[in-house]
Order: sequence, then structure tokens, then C-alpha cells
Amino acid sequence: MNGSQMAEEMAEQPARLRRLIGRFDAIAERVRAVAPVPLNGITFVARGSSDHAAVYGRYLLEAATGKPVSLAAPSLHTLYSVEVDYSGQLVIAVSQSGATPEIVRTLQALQDGGGCGLAITNDPDSPLAKAAGEVVELGLGAERAVPATKTVTGQLTALAIVASALGRVPFTRGELDSLPEWVQAVLDDPGPVAVAAEALVGTSQLIVVARGYLFAAALETALKIKETCSLLADGYSAADLRHGPIAAVTRGLPVVALCVPGPALADVASLVEELRARQASVLVVGSGERADIPLPSSAPEPIAPIVAVVRGQQLAHELALRLGHDPDAPQGLTKVTPT
Amino acid sequence: MNGSQMAEEMAEQPARLRRLIGRFDAIAERVRAVAPVPLNGITFVARGSSDHAAVYGRYLLEAATGKPVSLAAPSLHTLYSVEVDYSGQLVIAVSQSGATPEIVRTLQALQDGGGCGLAITNDPDSPLAKAAGEVVELGLGAERAVPATKTVTGQLTALAIVASALGRVPFTRGELDSLPEWVQAVLDDPGPVAVAAEALVGTSQLIVVARGYLFAAALETALKIKETCSLLADGYSAADLRHGPIAAVTRGLPVVALCVPGPALADVASLVEELRARQASVLVVGSGERADIPLPSSAPEPIAPIVAVVRGQQLAHELALRLGHDPDAPQGLTKVTPT
Repeated sequence: MNGSQMAEEMAEQPARLRRLIGRFDAIAERVRAVAPVPLNGITFVARGSSDHAAVYGRYLLEAATGKPVSLAAPSLHTLYSVEVDYSGQLVIAVSQSGATPEIVRTLQALQDGGGCGLAITNDPDSPLAKAAGEVVELGLGAERAVPATKTVTGQLTALAIVASALGRVPFTRGELDSLPEWVQAVLDDPGPVAVAAEALVGTSQLIVVARGYLFAAALETALKIKETCSLLADGYSAADLRHGPIAAVTRGLPVVALCVPGPALADVASLVEELRARQASVLVVGSGERADIPLPSSAPEPIAPIVAVVRGQQLAHELALRLGHDPDAPQGLTKVTPT
Repeated sequence: MNGSQMAEEMAEQPARLRRLIGRFDAIAERVRAVAPVPLNGITFVARGSSDHAAVYGRYLLEAATGKPVSLAAPSLHTLYSVEVDYSGQLVIAVSQSGATPEIVRTLQALQDGGGCGLAITNDPDSPLAKAAGEVVELGLGAERAVPATKTVTGQLTALAIVASALGRVPFTRGELDSLPEWVQAVLDDPGPVAVAAEALVGTSQLIVVARGYLFAAALETALKIKETCSLLADGYSAADLRHGPIAAVTRGLPVVALCVPGPALADVASLVEELRARQASVLVVGSGERADIPLPSSAPEPIAPIVAVVRGQQLAHELALRLGHDPDAPQGLTKVTPT
């Protein structure tokens, strides 16, 4: 796990997240200051790994506020310049660099349309931070490896705080405070991931499945593997997979399934049985008995995605090394994507 | 193109769409009757191919109304039973069968939370139609092949009418009236697809890219290929592809790119250049000069997705036949998915 910038940044996560959670009250205050009253709904603006943090936020914020939460379609604003009425909307732009032009332009367009803008970014001097009505600075230190790691878990954690500021969340403050320990426990236990990575050498494709809160972690795990290993990995919700794509699951296809005890478990467990009946090679990441890669058993389902993302980072990193790739510098990617 | 149920149902499309467009005023009236005033926003509930129709609707309805449009996360309602306040929301559930339990339950939960529900379905006696405040019946006749074809273009066309009923749309009524002819022109020109399908025999994976309005057609084309050919095909927006997944585009990977003249063209065209520089094997579906598979040049960008979906159906069907698959009955799929 050592030697790469990516591994170093992964190792920083427990301390960085502890500091971020320590700023809970100050962050919650900023969120409450910018959120419109009454709140009609919430819209996220994000791309890439930040978009997966937004998917997690989409679930958590609708659960906390009961209001419709959407993910913006940036092209409506950057290409088609539609006129919008976003009054009563909280618009949350998520970007580690704060420098992707279309994210800045989309936030501006939605603010111009009456939305109240909040930027969640690692760079408080970025164009995004300057454009937004309010900013939550992640304070995670510079991230140098191209695959985002600590900034993703930082964004997810920040969104758990944002949700707490806006309504009733399905986890306790004590559980959020335990998150850094759970992440540390996962980092201290690389063995099961090394075994799994070894078994994946030679595959040209894989899929990652989950349901509910963990869906965001499936998307992020798939992206991390795509970026670092140059192999096609796609994330699916268990329900979406059944609506067609399961026809492409054939004998021997590696499938990573994320599941922990909670309302989504039964659905994913039954999908795992179905996939095994199709002779897929299923690897379970979870806190149940039959997990190949364990997650801390005390992490509740709505917090587990943040820990599962770290398992995905480990898997991507370990597999990249075995494939002879430099995990810090994926082919053709740059740290800021100029879309 | 003959012999299969899927091909027969594809061939019905021009006549079915013509009849649907002929009901424009009656449909628009139903939509206006159910939409709340004032309208706060719109939420779609859908899975699978219907979800891709919803993605098209998501762009078109936000362009027409200026209000935030979201795609529901069904698990919030079916697994986590969150309490919601959807007052002022138009909730549009899209399902060809109207029989998928989670779609019905999610629509009900959002209506219970104050949303005004509209079902777009091919079966006016379905549980979904019965649960919804208002129904747009597609009237496309029974669809027997498992891969949805005429019901998808029917849903897309219905959403073009719904958008017209709610605001100013980026196409004319005359253009919508020409849609059946454009679909007919594509069906009458199977040659370029046959050549493309022949070249894809032997591939185990491919990706489909587009941007803006055509993004939904990329998702649907990828799904149709997954379903009928049992090979992993994924759809991406050009912007999302650049935010990481492009690292997995390696020498020889087949990429289908959809593009027509309009605001999104430059972005996709420059992506095609990048992908060719990575030695991907790019196939262009579009109305420009360099298209490998042509689309009718008079179809404007916001209507082109409906025609492009038919190109995707043809490609999936032709490739399935060459691979020895029965396009009507993909492995492990049923016409109604019990999620």
C-alpha cells in the first residue's frame, strides 16, 4: 500500500476526517445561514467523484429534509442556456478543486435564477468558492494524486454534516464521530483487499452493485478502478441491474457487491444469489458473515458508504499496482478536468 | 431485420408514433389538468428503458418550465420510508407495463406527500395507472419482445408532448409531426447498421457517448445492446467520460458517438478526436458529414434522440442476430421486472 501519493493521501483520511467532523457546528451554521426558508428543494452540481458524493447527498438530504433533491444537468445551463426559476432551492456545488469551468457556470446560472448557492470545495480561493453565496471549505490539504481519495471521503463527510444541519438524519452524532476510527480500521486491514486484487488480475471488466445509501460507494468504487486500472468497471444499483443490464452478466464476470445490515441488505443479498446462479464471480464487501472484504460491523448503513469508499480505494490501488500502472497518474487524466 | 418480434415492433413505430402525436391536444389537456399551479418542480419515477425516457424528459421539461427536475430514488420510499413534502411537484411515473411494484409504491409515496401524479404507460388498467392522479395512455399495442422498442420511442414522444403542454419547447409542432417520417427513413436504411454490427462481432465491451439531449439515447442504446447481446455496454455523457472513465478507453475499444448539429456538437466532436487519438474504434451516429450511421439531417437536436434510439435498436438487433442470440428473449430477463 506504500510508495504512491495516492496511498499517502488515503492514509491521511482518519486524521483529516476527524478534523472536519470537529468543525461540525461551524459548518452547520454556514449551511443554515444560506439555506432558503421555506426550502422548496435541493439541487447538486458536480462531476466525477464529486458527483458520487452528490449521489450520497441526494439520498441523505431527501431523507433529512423530505424535499425533492435533484442532480443538475450542467449542459442545460452551459450549452442550452435555459432560463430557470430556482427560487427556494438550495444549490450545492461539490468540487475538490473548485476549478472545473462548467461547475462554476452552472452554479452561477442557478444562483442567477434565484437559487441559494453553497460550494463544498477543498480550495476556498477557487473560482467556485468565489462564485458561491456560501462556502464549506473541506480543509483536507492539497491532493496531488489524480484519483481523488481524501477529498471524496471529505465531501461525503461534509454532506453528512450538511444533512444534519437541515433535518433529522438516520445516524447519531456519536456514529459520525466514530467514522475516523472505522476508516482507520479499514486502512489497518489491507489483507482481504490484497487477496481480492490478486484474483482480479487478468479481468478486462467488472461491475459493482449496491442499493440505497451504498449505491454512491458502488459508483465511486467503479470509477476509481476505471481511473487507476484502465479497465471498464461500472456501478449499478441492484434494482437498475435487474432492469436489463443483468443480461450482460455472464459466467466468470467479476462483480463486487456492497452490503451491510439495514433496509437494503435483503435486496442485495438476493441479487448476489442470482448473480452466483449466473456463475458470476461475486466478491462481497460488507459487514455480514459472508463478506470477503469486511467493513466495521458497528458502522450503520447511512455512514457505511464513507467506509466502503475506502475499501474501493484500496481495491483500485492494489489492482493498479499489480497491473503495473502508476496509480497517481492515470493515462490521459489531469487533476482538474476542463469541461 | 425480419423474423423477430423485436423487429416487427420496431417496424410498427412510425404508425404508432403518428397516432400518438395525433392525440397531442388531448394529452396536453390531461397534463395541464394535473400539473400543480404554481409548479415548484417535477420528479420522474422510472427504471430501465423508461428511466432513459425520463432522462430525456428531465432535460426537456427543465428547458420548457425552468423549474428543477429530478429523478426519484425509489429506495428512499420503498426501503427507507422517508417522510416527504412534495407539494407543488408534478410527479411523472413512466413504465410501459405499469406493473413494476416499486414504481407504483414510489408514485404513491410521492402523491401521499402532496405531489400530483401522472402515469405514462401502455396499460391503462395497470396498477400504476390506477394509482396515479392522471394517466397518459400510450396506446402502442402490446409489446411482446422483452427489449422495449416501440414503448420507448412512444414514451419519448409522449414526453415531448408533455413538455409542450407545460412551456416553451426547443422544437416546432411541425418538427414533431415529421418525427414518424424520420423514424421511417431510418428503418428503411438498415445498410449502415449492418456494416457496423458486422464490425462489432467479437467485442466483449463497448461504450456509447453523447451530450445534452442525446445523452438519453446513448444510455438507451447501451442498454439495448446489453440486453440483446449480453455484452457490457455503457452510456456516458461526454463530460462525465472526461471526468475519469476515459482512462479506461484503450486501443481498439469500440465507442459509439451520437451527435447532430446543435449546441452539443462541438463537445462530442472534440471528444471523438480525443478518443481516436487513444486509438479507440469510434463509430459516429449522426447527421454530420462524417457519420458512419446517418440520422435524418432535418431532425433538430431536441427531437433527434427519438430517431437515434431507433438506430440503437437496429444496432442491438443486428448484432444480437450475428452473435446467435434470440433478440426477443434475453437471458434471464422477463417483460415485467419485479423490483
